[in-house]
Amino acid sequence: MSEEMEVLYEKLTFFFETRKFADLRMTLLDMAPADIALYAEDNLDEKEIIVFFRLLPKELASDVFIEFDADTQETLIKAFTDKELKAVIDDMFLDDTVDVIEEMPANVVKRILKNSDPENRKQINELLAYPDDTAGSIMTPEFVSLSPTMTVEEAFDKIRQTGVNKESIYTCYVVGKKKKLIGVVTVKDLLLSSKQDLIENIMTTAVITVETLEDKEQVALKLSKYDFIALPVVDKEGLLVGIVTVDDAVDVIQEEATEDIHKMAGVAPTEKPYLKQSIFSIWRARAPWLIILLITSTFTSMILAGYEDRLDAILYAFVPMLMGTAGNAGGQTSVTVIRAIAVEEVSFGDILKVILKELLVSLLVGISIAIICFAKIMLLDRLYNDISINYALIISLVCLISIVMAKLVGCILPLVAKKCHLDPAVVASPLMTTIVDALSLIIYCTISIAIL
Amino acid sequence: MSEEMEVLYEKLTFFFETRKFADLRMTLLDMAPADIALYAEDNLDEKEIIVFFRLLPKELASDVFIEFDADTQETLIKAFTDKELKAVIDDMFLDDTVDVIEEMPANVVKRILKNSDPENRKQINELLAYPDDTAGSIMTPEFVSLSPTMTVEEAFDKIRQTGVNKESIYTCYVVGKKKKLIGVVTVKDLLLSSKQDLIENIMTTAVITVETLEDKEQVALKLSKYDFIALPVVDKEGLLVGIVTVDDAVDVIQEEATEDIHKMAGVAPTEKPYLKQSIFSIWRARAPWLIILLITSTFTSMILAGYEDRLDAILYAFVPMLMGTAGNAGGQTSVTVIRAIAVEEVSFGDILKVILKELLVSLLVGISIAIICFAKIMLLDRLYNDISINYALIISLVCLISIVMAKLVGCILPLVAKKCHLDPAVVASPLMTTIVDALSLIIYCTISIAIL
Repeated sequence: MSEEMEVLYEKLTFFFETRKFADLRMTLLDMAPADIALYAEDNLDEKEIIVFFRLLPKELASDVFIEFDADTQETLIKAFTDKELKAVIDDMFLDDTVDVIEEMPANVVKRILKNSDPENRKQINELLAYPDDTAGSIMTPEFVSLSPTMTVEEAFDKIRQTGVNKESIYTCYVVGKKKKLIGVVTVKDLLLSSKQDLIENIMTTAVITVETLEDKEQVALKLSKYDFIALPVVDKEGLLVGIVTVDDAVDVIQEEATEDIHKMAGVAPTEKPYLKQSIFSIWRARAPWLIILLITSTFTSMILAGYEDRLDAILYAFVPMLMGTAGNAGGQTSVTVIRAIAVEEVSFGDILKVILKELLVSLLVGISIAIICFAKIMLLDRLYNDISINYALIISLVCLISIVMAKLVGCILPLVAKKCHLDPAVVASPLMTTIVDALSLIIYCTISIAIL
Repeated sequence: MSEEMEVLYEKLTFFFETRKFADLRMTLLDMAPADIALYAEDNLDEKEIIVFFRLLPKELASDVFIEFDADTQETLIKAFTDKELKAVIDDMFLDDTVDVIEEMPANVVKRILKNSDPENRKQINELLAYPDDTAGSIMTPEFVSLSPTMTVEEAFDKIRQTGVNKESIYTCYVVGKKKKLIGVVTVKDLLLSSKQDLIENIMTTAVITVETLEDKEQVALKLSKYDFIALPVVDKEGLLVGIVTVDDAVDVIQEEATEDIHKMAGVAPTEKPYLKQSIFSIWRARAPWLIILLITSTFTSMILAGYEDRLDAILYAFVPMLMGTAGNAGGQTSVTVIRAIAVEEVSFGDILKVILKELLVSLLVGISIAIICFAKIMLLDRLYNDISINYALIISLVCLISIVMAKLVGCILPLVAKKCHLDPAVVASPLMTTIVDALSLIIYCTISIAIL
């Protein structure tokens, strides 16, 4: 936190504790809603937050409310009178209301819906019906729509009338019959046109749209690809039903990256921030993958037990190094390919290109590692272990072969998973670990026995 | 790629090959620059791209140019006459010009600067001077600045005059003497005010700014936290020098997530997309970490060799399983904590909270895994291995202790790295693997020898 912000927070605490509420309000008026919410959650207890929230300047209340996390929101709603609740909800954008509702228990949801306007209630229910992870679930039905025969002047009037409640007014959508989307016009276009120009003459007709059921990650990637502030969402008939704004897309991109990072490390995705998660929910997110890997490790134990009598005990000491190197080499490749798939740099159609690339890279990496491995054994490991040059050569050779094998497995698995409509991040990691572990052990044991 | 897009691409190829250039231009006019660039790079060779680029409608040329990747841009610049080059550059936003320049070899840079306006050249040079990864390196000096004594009507005139060349006109910056930033006003505010209102009466004075040398990742996080479309960048004296727009912030967020994912898997960050990287550069990004882990694995080999005579051969078969489980358990924690640090959910100040949390989680996870491990050994491993209940108990106990140890190491390391101003993603992974590998082996060997 910046020093400036710390000073501000101390001021707030002073005003709150000494009950200088007019000063408190003056200070709050100059702060961003996100900072106000952060202050309250970090510095006040439940009861104080309720008092604090009631002290907020009216125009800030709903903006601050949506910045709180779900637990605080629930506490507040339970403390609200119906009138207070209605005031906050009426002032919120519909997509934010839906975000809040999605986190609340059933009885709270009922109270929220009861205190919404009938028109809003209908739209909220429609938005709630879209499956998670779709464009519909993150869109807002509040946007400026224009008709093609309006003039620029009329368009500005329309924006002024409807604009206050719209989340993004800078892109206006031109709709024809039955709400069919026929073009877009930005406020910039409007400002640079003369007042009497007709919308149909200045609008762009090549509109990039997304469908309600499209994956929200795809939507965010599209927004980022085209550098838009908002994207229109249409239903199957091409009728305009809402827009997705860039701030929501940024959140989606952050969340999806976090999810992918967690999945690759074998942690099931969770909605809450780390510090807010319960011990039990963290356990539930982490135990399954460890169990799966524990069970599949039976293979490596079996292989090792099977070779027990035939493998020189000295060679056992290098098993962790070889399996570790293979696992790391494979992980480098699978993680790179999984991320490239996620940001749409690579698709299944590139599989041959990718395999060829990884084959060459793995040879280059494998040969360099094998040479270093040989040197390490001769210089370091011989200090404590009575190991022969033959053994050093075998271990280095196995190193090379395992790296090539691991990198090929690491690039093929995620692409095949994607092709089978499975999540590469979830499927590839445990499967790769298991396959690479088992294969590298088999390579080690068979090669050493064959040569010696 | 969508079907619609495929049809469009086929149309382009047909028009291009049959030299129906008027039709080609008509089709291109309806397409987004990003899609046009993608088409050219995927379907045309170098010479064809040069011809194709010259056929582009003038108003699209520079927009398409910045969407090409650096290699194509270089090819085009080399083919351009000075006049063509000047036309493209004059039409580009300054921050885009800087992005292009940063990827070009020196002789191309010289030509670009030679063909820029003197005023632009000065600004480009200033922008180039900001270190990579700072706000200055991604900002644009092109924005709308207003004076506090203007009326709303005058403000609109100013926007119209300067707006065409500005990347983001929807937030205007109010500057006082010496370009000191004193407030912001959005086009939305202007539209909702009456024409004669003074800017100083409608502007917001609580402006959230970033400094030129602030980390660009922090800047992106700030933009996302406050849901802004642009953030003003000020120098140390608080004078306004540029703005960072949300589309650049989205790119930063994507790139930083990719970098972190790569680093956690032991791959050095690279600038180019995977398919464009050379075999050699991939090798350079991957070999170092494998070498480090290879060398540090000497510890595990030493430990195993040291216990060789004293450890029952049957127990060797479970070394990979135990080390794997500890490594995975530690990885889950370190990756979660590293990501939480990156998105600013967790800081060093939370270390005690985090340790307590991980201690409880690791006990819960450890106990469940130990129970399953015991069951697995009795039910599965006894099928092929003559292992006693005592051994099964020891292995399960080691499993529990290793998981607790690994998760504690996994949460402490990234936080300490952050505190020491080191990159948690880079430091934590290799160090954690080494420590956890060695410790889990030592725990295994000492406990089995002590008990048996």
